[in-house]
Amino acid sequence: MKKFVNDPKQYVPEMLTGIALANPTTLRYVPEYNLIMRADAPSDKKVSIIQGSGSGHEPAHVMIVGRGMLDAACPGDVFAAPPMDYVLETTKLLATPMGVLHIVNNYTGDRMAFDMGKEMAEAEGIRIETVIVDDDVSVKDSTWTVGRRGVAGNFFVIKAVGAASEQGADLDHLVDLAKRVNSVTRSMGMALTSGTVPAAGRPNFELGDDEMEMGVGIHGEPGRRREKLASANAIIDELLEAVASDLPFKSGDNVALMINGLGGTPISELYILYGRAHQQLEARGIKVQRNYVGSYCTSLDMAGCSLTLVRLDDDLVKLLDAPAEVAVRIF
Amino acid sequence: MKKFVNDPKQYVPEMLTGIALANPTTLRYVPEYNLIMRADAPSDKKVSIIQGSGSGHEPAHVMIVGRGMLDAACPGDVFAAPPMDYVLETTKLLATPMGVLHIVNNYTGDRMAFDMGKEMAEAEGIRIETVIVDDDVSVKDSTWTVGRRGVAGNFFVIKAVGAASEQGADLDHLVDLAKRVNSVTRSMGMALTSGTVPAAGRPNFELGDDEMEMGVGIHGEPGRRREKLASANAIIDELLEAVASDLPFKSGDNVALMINGLGGTPISELYILYGRAHQQLEARGIKVQRNYVGSYCTSLDMAGCSLTLVRLDDDLVKLLDAPAEVAVRIF
Repeated sequence: MKKFVNDPKQYVPEMLTGIALANPTTLRYVPEYNLIMRADAPSDKKVSIIQGSGSGHEPAHVMIVGRGMLDAACPGDVFAAPPMDYVLETTKLLATPMGVLHIVNNYTGDRMAFDMGKEMAEAEGIRIETVIVDDDVSVKDSTWTVGRRGVAGNFFVIKAVGAASEQGADLDHLVDLAKRVNSVTRSMGMALTSGTVPAAGRPNFELGDDEMEMGVGIHGEPGRRREKLASANAIIDELLEAVASDLPFKSGDNVALMINGLGGTPISELYILYGRAHQQLEARGIKVQRNYVGSYCTSLDMAGCSLTLVRLDDDLVKLLDAPAEVAVRIF
Repeated sequence: MKKFVNDPKQYVPEMLTGIALANPTTLRYVPEYNLIMRADAPSDKKVSIIQGSGSGHEPAHVMIVGRGMLDAACPGDVFAAPPMDYVLETTKLLATPMGVLHIVNNYTGDRMAFDMGKEMAEAEGIRIETVIVDDDVSVKDSTWTVGRRGVAGNFFVIKAVGAASEQGADLDHLVDLAKRVNSVTRSMGMALTSGTVPAAGRPNFELGDDEMEMGVGIHGEPGRRREKLASANAIIDELLEAVASDLPFKSGDNVALMINGLGGTPISELYILYGRAHQQLEARGIKVQRNYVGSYCTSLDMAGCSLTLVRLDDDLVKLLDAPAEVAVRIF
């Protein structure tokens, strides 16, 4: 296993310790519940935004806690949903008079944990709403989900509700907004290699030296098909056609385009992919109004990418452009 | 070769096209000279800061062009110095009455290209100074250098002179500042895997499944020794001891700590490394005043890391905290 790891069981706590040490004034790590929260949360003047999922998708979600994004993230172990009592405790810690919004990617384990955590927290008098993200067009149902999977598109849902909640939006408004962003967001990914789960110590699945997996999930679960490795342009063209034809995105639309790396792909390659996607969208009469190139939602050290499109309107552009402060930064 | 690539010969131009399309108002791509420059450069009111090196180290340097950082970057092909006439043309395009500062990592090919480019540009009446970055403590001389190599520490030199040049500092001041930052900056890296040069189509060097290369260079050139894969903590402890004992960094020092990914390592693992390095520095009485965790200076898709320490003073902290706008961003 070619990874930086000590005891695989400590992979997640050691990562969270590192995040907390790097952000001593803005973030707080609560080891009892495997939780990263804003140091200044909760605030009576805003709804608390919480996301949780398995670990291994960093920076999602433990590194996107901060002003204008999440108020807290409660991750599980690598590729494992958070325990329901951790969801409960996180919700209790973040409870405010304005309520709590759970944002959950559509994976069965995550949904179960958040459903139970919500029910238990509601029994304690906390007002909670849940929005499910299901942006992945690759497969209708999957080995890990009923319905479409929730993948990198969750960034846009979180960015929008994070900005709106800073401006004082109430819980009903945020639920509508999150659903609206999810409804105009579509993604698809593909893998060149498998990631390696630290506790397993070997690749999560096998891919031949000349193979790729189109439509892969963020845990390496199967996509549409396995086939011979293709050129960067051919890969992007297929992802773009699948994503664009699904909503569909049409000539005259303004979009945000995200080229997301899956953990093991360097940014040089992501910009090669970005250039092609941008040009192909222009050829379709679709304007790229905002772009995001980087590793936003990963699958451990998997080499691969995903492409996300979001249909924009003026309100959504303002929310995307609003300030945000998170652990992942260059400067 | 498990990479996103079309024609390997077009790897660099396609990447630069992507960068330009993603930053249409702030950056300009000049294909004739393989050059990325600020759209608003040159300015009569500031010294132009130029860096060039082989490609394959992104975001260094083509993605750190922008306000408060580089005014232009002239990359060569992957792991190849830029042609001297490209250095000349870049310098001519960026020439200002206040002069031009070349920042060059200490690699023999880069130094030759910049020496010749400088000489030719001076013959045309342009005032130029050069500062060499040589922060890598791994080896005294190397297969690619006389003297120490210049690696991820170049970020701090560029950040400091980029900020100072925005404030109107003159060329002599910037030369002194760049030398001063380089003199308090030390780095060392190590590889878990080799990167793959697109034109070669196979790993740049061979490492066994249970081996690592301590002190590796950013082109995969040999370091101090090859040995059995160790734990994350053992790796950081060795890098930290080598770096800290070199300057040396001592109890009472304030430092910037960078944990840099080499391209194929996900940010989850970098934070595991960061946590250990932070704790070990604290145990030595050294305060981490600023931290940088991410992939700043890579070696294609190499899995690996480097650790950089910079001894800080109040002036340098202000320059590191000054605003900067570059292609690589999350929001």
